[in-house]
Amino acid sequence: MPKTPLLDQVNTPDDLRKIPVESLRQLADELRQETISAVGTTGGHLGSGLGVVELTVAIHYVFDTPNDRLVWDVGHQCYPHKILTGRRDRIRTLRQGGGLSGFTKRAESEYDPFGAAHSSTSISAALGFAIANKLARKPGKGIAVIGDGAMSAGMAYEAMNNAAQAGNRLVVILNDNDMSIAPPVGGLSAYLARLVSSREFLGLRELAKRLARKLPRPLHKAARKTEEFARGMTMGGTLFEELGFYYVGPIDGHNLEHLIPVLENVRDAAAGPILVHVVTQKGKGYAPAEAAADKYHGVQTFDVISGEQAKAPPGPPSYTGIFAKALAAEAERDPKICAITAAMPGGTGIDLFEKRFPDRAFDVGIAEQHAVTFAAGLAAQGMRPFCAIYSTFLQRAYDQVVHDVAIQNLPVRFAIDRAGLVGADGSTHAGSFDVTYLATLPNFVVMAAADEAELVHMVHTCAVHDSGPIALRYPRGNGTGTALPETPERLEIGKGRIVRQGKTVAILSLGTRLEEALKAADLLEAQGLSTTVADLRFAKPLDEALIRKLLTSHEVAVTIEEGAVGGLGAHVLTMASDQGLIDGGLKLRTMRLPDIFQDQDKPDKQYAEAGLDAAAIVQTVLTALRHNSAGVAQGARA
Amino acid sequence: MPKTPLLDQVNTPDDLRKIPVESLRQLADELRQETISAVGTTGGHLGSGLGVVELTVAIHYVFDTPNDRLVWDVGHQCYPHKILTGRRDRIRTLRQGGGLSGFTKRAESEYDPFGAAHSSTSISAALGFAIANKLARKPGKGIAVIGDGAMSAGMAYEAMNNAAQAGNRLVVILNDNDMSIAPPVGGLSAYLARLVSSREFLGLRELAKRLARKLPRPLHKAARKTEEFARGMTMGGTLFEELGFYYVGPIDGHNLEHLIPVLENVRDAAAGPILVHVVTQKGKGYAPAEAAADKYHGVQTFDVISGEQAKAPPGPPSYTGIFAKALAAEAERDPKICAITAAMPGGTGIDLFEKRFPDRAFDVGIAEQHAVTFAAGLAAQGMRPFCAIYSTFLQRAYDQVVHDVAIQNLPVRFAIDRAGLVGADGSTHAGSFDVTYLATLPNFVVMAAADEAELVHMVHTCAVHDSGPIALRYPRGNGTGTALPETPERLEIGKGRIVRQGKTVAILSLGTRLEEALKAADLLEAQGLSTTVADLRFAKPLDEALIRKLLTSHEVAVTIEEGAVGGLGAHVLTMASDQGLIDGGLKLRTMRLPDIFQDQDKPDKQYAEAGLDAAAIVQTVLTALRHNSAGVAQGARA
Repeated sequence: MPKTPLLDQVNTPDDLRKIPVESLRQLADELRQETISAVGTTGGHLGSGLGVVELTVAIHYVFDTPNDRLVWDVGHQCYPHKILTGRRDRIRTLRQGGGLSGFTKRAESEYDPFGAAHSSTSISAALGFAIANKLARKPGKGIAVIGDGAMSAGMAYEAMNNAAQAGNRLVVILNDNDMSIAPPVGGLSAYLARLVSSREFLGLRELAKRLARKLPRPLHKAARKTEEFARGMTMGGTLFEELGFYYVGPIDGHNLEHLIPVLENVRDAAAGPILVHVVTQKGKGYAPAEAAADKYHGVQTFDVISGEQAKAPPGPPSYTGIFAKALAAEAERDPKICAITAAMPGGTGIDLFEKRFPDRAFDVGIAEQHAVTFAAGLAAQGMRPFCAIYSTFLQRAYDQVVHDVAIQNLPVRFAIDRAGLVGADGSTHAGSFDVTYLATLPNFVVMAAADEAELVHMVHTCAVHDSGPIALRYPRGNGTGTALPETPERLEIGKGRIVRQGKTVAILSLGTRLEEALKAADLLEAQGLSTTVADLRFAKPLDEALIRKLLTSHEVAVTIEEGAVGGLGAHVLTMASDQGLIDGGLKLRTMRLPDIFQDQDKPDKQYAEAGLDAAAIVQTVLTALRHNSAGVAQGARA
Repeated sequence: MPKTPLLDQVNTPDDLRKIPVESLRQLADELRQETISAVGTTGGHLGSGLGVVELTVAIHYVFDTPNDRLVWDVGHQCYPHKILTGRRDRIRTLRQGGGLSGFTKRAESEYDPFGAAHSSTSISAALGFAIANKLARKPGKGIAVIGDGAMSAGMAYEAMNNAAQAGNRLVVILNDNDMSIAPPVGGLSAYLARLVSSREFLGLRELAKRLARKLPRPLHKAARKTEEFARGMTMGGTLFEELGFYYVGPIDGHNLEHLIPVLENVRDAAAGPILVHVVTQKGKGYAPAEAAADKYHGVQTFDVISGEQAKAPPGPPSYTGIFAKALAAEAERDPKICAITAAMPGGTGIDLFEKRFPDRAFDVGIAEQHAVTFAAGLAAQGMRPFCAIYSTFLQRAYDQVVHDVAIQNLPVRFAIDRAGLVGADGSTHAGSFDVTYLATLPNFVVMAAADEAELVHMVHTCAVHDSGPIALRYPRGNGTGTALPETPERLEIGKGRIVRQGKTVAILSLGTRLEEALKAADLLEAQGLSTTVADLRFAKPLDEALIRKLLTSHEVAVTIEEGAVGGLGAHVLTMASDQGLIDGGLKLRTMRLPDIFQDQDKPDKQYAEAGLDAAAIVQTVLTALRHNSAGVAQGARA
């Protein structure tokens, strides 16, 4: 544990504001050490937090948090903020079950007025705070801290386009570290680099002079006129000025002597909205992070002295890795295959694809909407695009999936990683809804891989499926160790498979819960209940013949999926109802994710909480078998 | 019918290109007259098409369509394009059942390489075409024509941010008419206005000179160097240049003598991507349209000479109108209520709200993502925001609904207009999926109004529901004429109502299909089948007690909703299965939208096609009653 005499005196920003300004450098150093120490214990996001240590101190020192509403974009840089806002005592529970969230979270603290985890929401939210206060004639600004990568997302631009109405109640701090998770891409990134390289960091005196000129104080009688004048001048200025901001910067985000007076000027300015362009270094102040290519974006627990991260326990390769290899193999055979990622080349495995096929890999930045419609354009011109996007992030492109892909029946392949529960990242990253929101769409094929071998077959099936959109979901984490096929098979669309044949109980599984279904079958057999296990493979189209046979030839049937209500179970029930299979009585239960947003925890505990493990399957089957329907159901009337 | 001797010779762009350039003015005039005449017959979108008559002629004259892939953003300006691309013979079937779509549509013509209807997709799609051709080493550019309003959407920005990789294969034509449907809002709009006002339209000679300087031809040996030089120069230029475009303009979009040479230069330029800023006038060349505030954006059939539109047949007020009045009444009582629209103030009725409460109404432009998260910010600060967004457009903010509203359990009110089938706008505008994609989310309340009185109660219920997100859906078109309540009631969350009590058949309705359910009940009674009709009101939470009672006390039950699979019916079946109600046999059928994207038609025909009218309900009930489950269902084993 680092020695932190000054930090020990700071439990909230109020304490911080009592510290003499000349001591803030020491406080920042202690805060950095404490952050490193905490993440060394818990693992989590490190590089982003280290980059904003000084910024965190300066913001809380200058602004009136929590009355000024501070919104950290994405939120994975908020560990120093949590330490300074009454949560230091729990900082070594980050991302653990029952502990602090790895992101900002309203339920945790009044200093987290808006939760985050997905990128680029902060300006919209801060604008909401600013306008609400304006309407209520209450003090309080909205302050968004947003990275340069997050600025590439459309919703940040939409928010900037609407910012002017907030006047001086909105402050946007652009934290430009030239990195999102991967290096950023695109025109905006190039623009910011030019902006930084073309302007020297200003010295303190020059900065003050310019700010005074640029940001009139409220006392200035001619403030209003000056503002109009200043606005008139924005023409031809920076991109941000053209959208209606006052632009200040770039300034060195690790220099408190610059940050504090600039933020004070911004705080007191009569004009606005203001965008402060702060340049920081991801991983700042911790040599192993500064040296690493990803700046220790997300880390395992590690040794603080050496920086050596704990090795992940040995195990089978991850689904992501299997997908990446399988896709590359397809691309080797077929020059029309290409791959698209939205700023997650490492997370989706598209980095591997890019190394081998740089012309056919597209990292579009944090821009899921564009990613999907761009893929639709590629498909309309005869390419075979794979959009590799996490389940939770694909939500951001839902309209593009409906309007540009499904309605036009274009063969875009969706490789949906992180489908289902995701462990430490918690509810914001869970991929709970994709089966529901995709299987409701006409023209769509929706598959889920039950294991690594299935994943390889399904990647191939996607590759050769040219007649319309097709989605393939698979979870976070390691596979089951299943041997991989030498030659992938083309699966017949809408056909499942029997994995184990029994007589009394039928378990209809979609995706990787198959392993638990098989365990449950063993347990049921031990109780004398002969159990069939089917891997349905497809949520859409359903294997109606197989399902009908299973439902009508077993005493009880259970569907299981790692998704929310409205997905596989709902489709099986709908089919059964359409066909009149329930008319004469049908013991059918659907197991799915519960109707809550589950907090972070170890995956096993999350599955237990969700009721989606072998024990829960057994329980569901036994309860259903025992259920006496006489008197409660319509069967009584027969 | 107008006389169109020149146009009569043009069936395709190939014919057009044979016409001497000096005759194009006449052709454009004839094309304009034909467009006016056609829309006078069919109704539809007029102002947008009239604004791009010259642009349409010039693009097809200069570019090699269909090999150059032309993508019209939104697509409602494409009627002149349709006339020039082999569809003039069917132009008077626009938006009619079996006729031409009111938007571009891939199935209609090779000249429509990408369908549209939702805004701001064109640059992404055109980029897909450009890159696909580049990879295949085939000729052919991607050309996007996009309005200034559409430029306010995030996905246009995401696409621009990625455009540089297309080089000279991508051309974006910014059609700046200072209007989307309503006047545009926000920073970008102000910026474009400044851009236009600060630069004179260039004379032809000056234009040619500058273009030659700016856009080096391929033959130029130093082209590559020049391009690099030019890119270096973009710093500090227009916003578009800062994102990586060559910017050309502004130019007069009705002057063919300017348009043709500029587009020829753009076509032949070695550098790119290029953005051509064209200034047009919505409704151009038709006096009644030019004089109208909305420039005849969407019109009924009309008399070409007088411009007088056919009056809509007299009938009850629209759901939109009832909503607008009810919301204003709530806002009168409660200063915390505010309203947000994404560029649809007229379509959603928020224009009325804005007149009375200008401080509390927010038109954010075509920016649904921002709209929802902005509303979440307002709600987090204690306001009571209503987001009034069409069902189909809310898809564009799905991630914001999940991540910023549902996970945080913030009381944002969603007023979802155009829920269900929409008639002439067809599949792209149908609101088919909202119940499915919202009711799967934890914390959400999802309601549907069965008639106008219910709508008023539900608006009030939303207004006073502070404990979490709540959504209210209602359809396009006129109400049923139900008397409106003097004082709106607060409905109990998750409680339905019995509208008509019977014994044998139960119809469980959600939303405005209630009227057909009641008609069906009459028809069934006439056949001796006593029928209960319930208005469930809530898709989430379900009225479990009521549903259980209905299912277990009638011989057959049918759910009906105007939504796709995964919605109400699926939730009722899931509940019935969870509770074991189907174990002993349950005649339950779910009626929903079919698993196809339905083309435009008259609403009645669409409902008949969907199987969601009284006749279909009767049929479903009778078939279910006749269905002999013995031998096919598990009941056999009992």
